[in-house]
Amino acid sequence: MGTEEHRRKAKRVFRFAVITVSDSASRREREDESGDVIEERLKSLGNTCVYRSVVPDDKLRILKALAEAFEAGAEIVVTTGGTGVTSRDVTVEAVRPLFDKELAGFGDVFRLMSYEEVGTAAILTGATAGVIRSGGRAMVVFCLPGSPNAVRTGLRIIEREAGHVLKHAGE
Amino acid sequence: MGTEEHRRKAKRVFRFAVITVSDSASRREREDESGDVIEERLKSLGNTCVYRSVVPDDKLRILKALAEAFEAGAEIVVTTGGTGVTSRDVTVEAVRPLFDKELAGFGDVFRLMSYEEVGTAAILTGATAGVIRSGGRAMVVFCLPGSPNAVRTGLRIIEREAGHVLKHAGE
Amino acid sequence: MGTEEHRRKAKRVFRFAVITVSDSASRREREDESGDVIEERLKSLGNTCVYRSVVPDDKLRILKALAEAFEAGAEIVVTTGGTGVTSRDVTVEAVRPLFDKELAGFGDVFRLMSYEEVGTAAILTGATAGVIRSGGRAMVVFCLPGSPNAVRTGLRIIEREAGHVLKHAGE
Amino acid sequence: MGTEEHRRKAKRVFRFAVITVSDSASRREREDESGDVIEERLKSLGNTCVYRSVVPDDKLRILKALAEAFEAGAEIVVTTGGTGVTSRDVTVEAVRPLFDKELAGFGDVFRLMSYEEVGTAAILTGATAGVIRSGGRAMVVFCLPGSPNAVRTGLRIIEREAGHVLKHAGE
Amino acid sequence: MGTEEHRRKAKRVFRFAVITVSDSASRREREDESGDVIEERLKSLGNTCVYRSVVPDDKLRILKALAEAFEAGAEIVVTTGGTGVTSRDVTVEAVRPLFDKELAGFGDVFRLMSYEEVGTAAILTGATAGVIRSGGRAMVVFCLPGSPNAVRTGLRIIEREAGHVLKHAGE
Amino acid sequence: MGTEEHRRKAKRVFRFAVITVSDSASRREREDESGDVIEERLKSLGNTCVYRSVVPDDKLRILKALAEAFEAGAEIVVTTGGTGVTSRDVTVEAVRPLFDKELAGFGDVFRLMSYEEVGTAAILTGATAGVIRSGGRAMVVFCLPGSPNAVRTGLRIIEREAGHVLKHAGE
Repeated sequence: MGTEEHRRKAKRVFRFAVITVSDSASRREREDESGDVIEERLKSLGNTCVYRSVVPDDKLRILKALAEAFEAGAEIVVTTGGTGVTSRDVTVEAVRPLFDKELAGFGDVFRLMSYEEVGTAAILTGATAGVIRSGGRAMVVFCLPGSPNAVRTGLRIIEREAGHVLKHAGE
Repeated sequence: MGTEEHRRKAKRVFRFAVITVSDSASRREREDESGDVIEERLKSLGNTCVYRSVVPDDKLRILKALAEAFEAGAEIVVTTGGTGVTSRDVTVEAVRPLFDKELAGFGDVFRLMSYEEVGTAAILTGATAGVIRSGGRAMVVFCLPGSPNAVRTGLRIIEREAGHVLKHAGE
Repeated sequence: MGTEEHRRKAKRVFRFAVITVSDSASRREREDESGDVIEERLKSLGNTCVYRSVVPDDKLRILKALAEAFEAGAEIVVTTGGTGVTSRDVTVEAVRPLFDKELAGFGDVFRLMSYEEVGTAAILTGATAGVIRSGGRAMVVFCLPGSPNAVRTGLRIIEREAGHVLKHAGE
Repeated sequence: MGTEEHRRKAKRVFRFAVITVSDSASRREREDESGDVIEERLKSLGNTCVYRSVVPDDKLRILKALAEAFEAGAEIVVTTGGTGVTSRDVTVEAVRPLFDKELAGFGDVFRLMSYEEVGTAAILTGATAGVIRSGGRAMVVFCLPGSPNAVRTGLRIIEREAGHVLKHAGE
Repeated sequence: MGTEEHRRKAKRVFRFAVITVSDSASRREREDESGDVIEERLKSLGNTCVYRSVVPDDKLRILKALAEAFEAGAEIVVTTGGTGVTSRDVTVEAVRPLFDKELAGFGDVFRLMSYEEVGTAAILTGATAGVIRSGGRAMVVFCLPGSPNAVRTGLRIIEREAGHVLKHAGE
Repeated sequence: MGTEEHRRKAKRVFRFAVITVSDSASRREREDESGDVIEERLKSLGNTCVYRSVVPDDKLRILKALAEAFEAGAEIVVTTGGTGVTSRDVTVEAVRPLFDKELAGFGDVFRLMSYEEVGTAAILTGATAGVIRSGGRAMVVFCLPGSPNAVRTGLRIIEREAGHVLKHAGE
């Protein structure tokens, strides 16, 4: 069975959550443009948003939001922000230990596409994804950078592959 | 300055949280005796309980409770349960990645005291402690086994040393 | 339910394997006295030896023996040797990554009992234990040092607690 | 000395092993097409197959096969299968702890080539490689996905670079 | 704010150090061509070289050189050599544990550019980068392979992005 | 061969280094009493001090001192300070990644002896030891707390076992 066929057979719509990680957005000093981009795009494809929140760059707050997303029934979680190299950036460090399985390939493909768009600046692009299994359910988490452009790049992968990943993650 | 003097100078009372990790207690199939023992003992020493909850053996639920304890202002968190060797036991695996500094010595001393009490059965005794720093505050988490007897052993350490640890953790 | 009661209810007899890790014993340059001590003692308590081998200090050979012990139906595996500080010692490094759950308490209690027997020389005593789950079964592995005396100390723990650990490991 | 010159000077033929990791193939419910592709291609280039086996998705069985491949004198091992995101996939988790040196670059280049072939679906592509040193010998292990197409992509790297890697791994 | 704008605003010149890791160069058996390439290129862009040394493939010597570079005021350190797969190569293993934040993206982009240049031989290309924070300062370390060609590839990234990374690393 | 016999046969005298890790002592705001205790005691037993320094709580400075101790020919290094739970304490974090083999038993025995002396306050006692191999030589590093009392406890172990450990570490 080829990749294309696989994808067609994969579940098409899913329940998703959006978590924006940003000190300034959590203080409402700026709009959550990236969160909006994610929610609108995934909804426009027929998926249902079951949870959304904006949290500061803090591990405990990020993990609490992840737990709430899971309780809300999210199958896919997209986080945006907190993946850079400043000392405040802790999203990947918070989420990674919860992965039962990390999709090392997501970061690679994301960086490859970023490189095509921004060149060597892609070295600053942090991104990862992984599967969290709990209580007989699987939730796939994608961690994207904070900028709307990076989010759009990430969505080009997620909108094509999320159902595909979800299908395997549940096995 | 000797150890005894150090302890006398350490802050005496603190705000604490109790998190019971147990599938059966979270379904209210049994009383949360161990949680009661912790709350009563620490309160009787003048400390204030700011948060208490019972959660199932699930990493996300444990982490959410930890975040809520932090938001409630807890300086000390005592968890009970989920430290054994069954496949359901995940407390230490959930909490440890959040430690900015693990107190390897807590597990050692706890096991030593357990050995004096239950002999070789102490090999099954899981326990650890560590410091979580966030937003300029430090929270010290002690993870104890689920049995009331093990909890009493752990409290003999915590009631003597928590203030001491807290003082250093904040530095 | 107290510890003693727990132990009485725990399964009493089990199928076990003995793996001796030693370059010289694997070349038959010396007797496998420690292996004999383990086999005889556990058999005398009614347990059944389903696998025994002597392998050199080599990770792949140790792991192969572990796989064969599992295939032979072993519920408990006791290894002896390869836990020291020379560059040849690799038993713990080979076995640990396979643990679904490590019993940190075993090493602690073992060292405590060693300290009572040999004093500060116990710092050179490497020992650990853990649970490997595969195909719906659980196998508990105890890694002991190579000397017959250390093995006797380890057996004092194993003969009392192995059934106890096995019961929980299978849950 | 340029890369091309390096490769020309690198040892050309080698002894290899093929390990297929698949529950269904190990129960003979399906042909081991991917294993056949690897064996035939590497043989057609003059290399010698010294070991081949099909094992289920089980860490101990995978490691035992690796040990047998080493004993059979394999210099290069190619595994296929068990690198995905289902809970059964454990090949990388089993093999990685044995690497004395991981070739992080293999996964990257493999993903890059997969991306050129299947686009964003490459995020699901798990692959790695590493060197295991034992008893004065070095064995290089390449872990590929289970599909024949992915295997063909991996072979395009292996057939060009295996000798090159082997030469350095032995230094 | 776009990537290009970001880069233009980033600090342009910096103090840098060059550390060549090579047994043969440290014994003066060959010229340190790669070190020369780095120093000349970065100087030609207006940056100041504050430290340079050649050390053997030895973790302690590499770490000592890193400490000396930091004391000399280096903001950027470029190492060359010791990133391959021979048993002597230890640069990444020595430096990585000191990273407060690793730039996973650097290795990816470096490998991508190497792949464009040398094809599948890029699998042997080790490279990473990360931020070390100490005493209120941040130092960014780039670890490149030993060959002058690989160094030139790495410099194409570093000369464009170092200021950019440095700006964020200090936040 | 019994433990006592082993020890008698072990090399008796050695070249040692003392590294004091302390912000205040490095600024000469207080005497380095603990460093003096170590040097005097080990010298009084016939050993030779080949290196001594006082460094601030900084990973790079600690590692540089370790490298200098190695270059000075030290076989045994004793560090004092930086093993506590404040955010400044980084000695164990700096040194541990360099261990080819950690002596987990040293921390256990040290804590056991501390418990006998200061009771439950031993939970705050950080200590570890390990072997660093480089260039055909082995160096054993013991990391002790900063207080003179804790140092005296550690020395009771080191003066009995250092030769013993050194003998095995070199094998």
